[in-house]
Amino acid sequence: MAPAQRQPNVVVLGGGSWGTTVASICARRGPALQWVRSAETAADINENHRNSRYLGDTAVLSDTLRATTDFSEAAGCADVIVMGVPSHGFRGVLTELAAELRPWVPVVSLVKGLEQGTNMRMSQIVEEVLPGHPAGILAGPNIAREVGEGYAAAAVLAMPDQHMAANLAGLFRTKRFRTYTTDDVVGVEMAGALKNVYAIAVGMGYSLGIGENTRALVMARAVREMSNLGEAMGGARDTFSGLAGMGDLIVTCTSQRSRNRHVGEQLGTGKSIEEIITAMNQVAEGVKAAGVVMEFANKHGLNMPIARQVNSVINHGATVEDAYRGLGTEQPGHEIHGVGF
Amino acid sequence: MAPAQRQPNVVVLGGGSWGTTVASICARRGPALQWVRSAETAADINENHRNSRYLGDTAVLSDTLRATTDFSEAAGCADVIVMGVPSHGFRGVLTELAAELRPWVPVVSLVKGLEQGTNMRMSQIVEEVLPGHPAGILAGPNIAREVGEGYAAAAVLAMPDQHMAANLAGLFRTKRFRTYTTDDVVGVEMAGALKNVYAIAVGMGYSLGIGENTRALVMARAVREMSNLGEAMGGARDTFSGLAGMGDLIVTCTSQRSRNRHVGEQLGTGKSIEEIITAMNQVAEGVKAAGVVMEFANKHGLNMPIARQVNSVINHGATVEDAYRGLGTEQPGHEIHGVGF
Repeated sequence: MAPAQRQPNVVVLGGGSWGTTVASICARRGPALQWVRSAETAADINENHRNSRYLGDTAVLSDTLRATTDFSEAAGCADVIVMGVPSHGFRGVLTELAAELRPWVPVVSLVKGLEQGTNMRMSQIVEEVLPGHPAGILAGPNIAREVGEGYAAAAVLAMPDQHMAANLAGLFRTKRFRTYTTDDVVGVEMAGALKNVYAIAVGMGYSLGIGENTRALVMARAVREMSNLGEAMGGARDTFSGLAGMGDLIVTCTSQRSRNRHVGEQLGTGKSIEEIITAMNQVAEGVKAAGVVMEFANKHGLNMPIARQVNSVINHGATVEDAYRGLGTEQPGHEIHGVGF
Repeated sequence: MAPAQRQPNVVVLGGGSWGTTVASICARRGPALQWVRSAETAADINENHRNSRYLGDTAVLSDTLRATTDFSEAAGCADVIVMGVPSHGFRGVLTELAAELRPWVPVVSLVKGLEQGTNMRMSQIVEEVLPGHPAGILAGPNIAREVGEGYAAAAVLAMPDQHMAANLAGLFRTKRFRTYTTDDVVGVEMAGALKNVYAIAVGMGYSLGIGENTRALVMARAVREMSNLGEAMGGARDTFSGLAGMGDLIVTCTSQRSRNRHVGEQLGTGKSIEEIITAMNQVAEGVKAAGVVMEFANKHGLNMPIARQVNSVINHGATVEDAYRGLGTEQPGHEIHGVGF
């Protein structure tokens, strides 16, 4: 039997709701440090075991979780990096990290989005900025506040190396938080980025008063569209009917708290996307993803009718009514092999 | 170009909510006759264009739909048979039909369940009782009342012959009802039978106050379990993340009207399954299916943890708390290739 080994230091970068929740999960298993920009948030975490700004007062964090605003301290002591910063800040933080991070340290992204401009997945950015560091993603149907309040939940950790995945998954696991493993990094990352676009589609539907049958129809066809693109990009079809695809889509479509669903609903009131984004004061990844998905679809020669309609509303002035009418006029084909809606 | 042909007479057997709704859909496209046992229901359909007993007053049926209580009349004029009778009456009605039905007439089942005792799918019963008649199934996320009230919905028609499927699908299609086609009869029939068991599992969860994350977790793992068994039985994996699988599961799990979900919730109050069934006065197919699914799982050497827990509660005296605790103690494995929960 191997002798007992030192437990890895998990360092979570970012002070948002999900980063904090994951940091708290890790702290229940072993040493965990969270880097946040705001001194106030750091103090809130260290003194009150809360992140009131993002998680309210009811979610009590692990009392062994420590927060710091000192980036070098965090970077220097990390055995595992968890990236909880939004996609637009991802590359910047990684670049800062490069000079300080020890070799071999794996980098796990929590980001469900693609880099604006390059359309890169987060793990691709890690490979570019930090070559030699194994890159993965943790994703699933996880409303941060619910996880923080102790409701059972699950996520999937995707890493190319399955031994490392199994090892790392143990760090992100509690009695109430189930972390599965997979080798399908591309699939999980694409599922995370794509499902936001379909959450907007369902949100648009709510504004039109669609019924439960219609919602299930849109979601089932959404999973088909996601699977087709994901597979074309090198992912596994089954990932898209799993936790990071269908699972996350279900939560995003039913939760009142979903930002992407909210965008869809607001589009249905006739507001412009600029107005909606300005009023939200938060990122809705699906807005940016809609155009990118169409670029991917064109590149792979795929027809993605739902994504196309969402993109028409967000980027080309179509109304929500136009979008649903457009889908309704398509003739249904073979459920699995058909290319239309 | 082929000359115009006579439109097929669609005959729907059964007076329940979904049979009536499908009959009304068909009547909007061409000649349709519905056989019902109750003279009152027949009169309601013919005179008021309603089936008040099952669909309330708000769902107005096509005024070209005609109902009859005369079985021979219905059987004799049918060019397509639609079986809207519950699984326990299915074989009996088919047997009566045998003497009267013209040759070659296709039989489309609306039943999401298996035959008690034989564990046969409905299309297998058709092949046994009416050999030579092509057998298929129409299934999807269809709350009858919503379809009747004009909300958009979709279903998938599974037939072995894709030319016939494409032809028949046209009969079950309106502007607001999208009928897709597939050749995966086994998959669609098994999805219809299996999803009821998982709807009970989610209903049990509601009684325990599970959150949205947990519900999405159970549903994602349910789709995986269904896919594994369905594939072992000869179905296509993609069918289970489609309309008849995941789509129907979403509707069944979120709808207040779902009988199977209701059973799960009632089990959570500590009532016995006999009490619940007696009080319901309606069939909840998942109750019977739970044991059958475990027989199939054993036959194919598959571990189906969620179905097993549902079966333990329904048939072996376990509590709902036991069931969820049992799932919670399983160690999560590889998301796609793992065999556990």
